[in-house]
Amino acid sequence: MMDKTCRVCQGSWPRKDHFIADLGLSNAYLHDDQYFPGWTVVVFKRHATELFHLAPTERIQLMEEVNLVAKTLAQVYEAKKINYELLGNQLPHIHWHVIPRLAGDPSSLEPVWRVEHEPILRSGPDLQSMVQGLQQAIQNAR
Amino acid sequence: MMDKTCRVCQGSWPRKDHFIADLGLSNAYLHDDQYFPGWTVVVFKRHATELFHLAPTERIQLMEEVNLVAKTLAQVYEAKKINYELLGNQLPHIHWHVIPRLAGDPSSLEPVWRVEHEPILRSGPDLQSMVQGLQQAIQNAR
Repeated sequence: MMDKTCRVCQGSWPRKDHFIADLGLSNAYLHDDQYFPGWTVVVFKRHATELFHLAPTERIQLMEEVNLVAKTLAQVYEAKKINYELLGNQLPHIHWHVIPRLAGDPSSLEPVWRVEHEPILRSGPDLQSMVQGLQQAIQNAR
Repeated sequence: MMDKTCRVCQGSWPRKDHFIADLGLSNAYLHDDQYFPGWTVVVFKRHATELFHLAPTERIQLMEEVNLVAKTLAQVYEAKKINYELLGNQLPHIHWHVIPRLAGDPSSLEPVWRVEHEPILRSGPDLQSMVQGLQQAIQNAR
C-alpha cells in the first residue's frame, strides 16, 4: 500500500543516509535538522495517515517501536524529557517525531516548533558516527 | 501514586468544568484554549512522565484511549488531520494533546505552537454544550 503522491512512499524523505534502524512496522531515521541533538523520526512503512486507520495490532506494535526509540534516546542523550509528536500537517504519512529535550536546552520549556534557529545539518563522518551510535544503542535496548 | 508538587496530581489542572470523560487509565478534558476547536487533553491518572515508565499493558491501554479520542474528534469536527503530542516540557505528568486540524484552519500546515493567537476561553452554557457534545460522541464511539 503506497501513495504515489507521497514523499515518503516515493522514497525522497527521509534521506537514506539518515537511516538508523528497521524496527518492524516502522523505520527510524535521524531527523534532517539536528539543532536538537538526537531528534529522530519513526516512519510507518506502509502509507497511512491516522492512528485510528491502523489495525489495533499494528497500532500497538507501532507505539512499542516509538517507545523503544524514546527509551533509547533518553539513555543516550540523558534527556530531561522526551517529546513525542505525530502531526502530519504537511506530510500526512505517519511519522513520529521523537525528540530528546536536554537539561542544557536554552528553550527547554518550549515546544521545538517555537524555537527560532538555523537548522544544523549533519553529513559525512559526523552523520555516520551519530547514526552508528544510535544503531548500536537501539540494538542493545531490544 | 502522586507527586505533591505536580499541578495535575494537586487537581489544579485541567479545570474540572472542562472534564469530558473517564476513559479508564486516563481522563479527557477540553483544553483551556479553544482557538483550535476541539483541542482535547488526555491526562494519565497516576503520576508518570514518560511512555517507557509505564507497564506495557498500561502503555497499550493509554494509547487506545488516545486513539478513541482522536477518532471521535476526527468525526465530530470533520478534521483534515489529527495532531497527537506528548510533550511535558512545562508539566511532565503525562498528558496527550489531541488536536483536530480543520480544512478551514488558516495555518493548517503549521504546528499549533507556531500560530500566534489570543486564546479563546469557553465558559458557561457554551462550554457545557461543547463538553456534552464530546461526552456523547465518545460514548457512541466506544
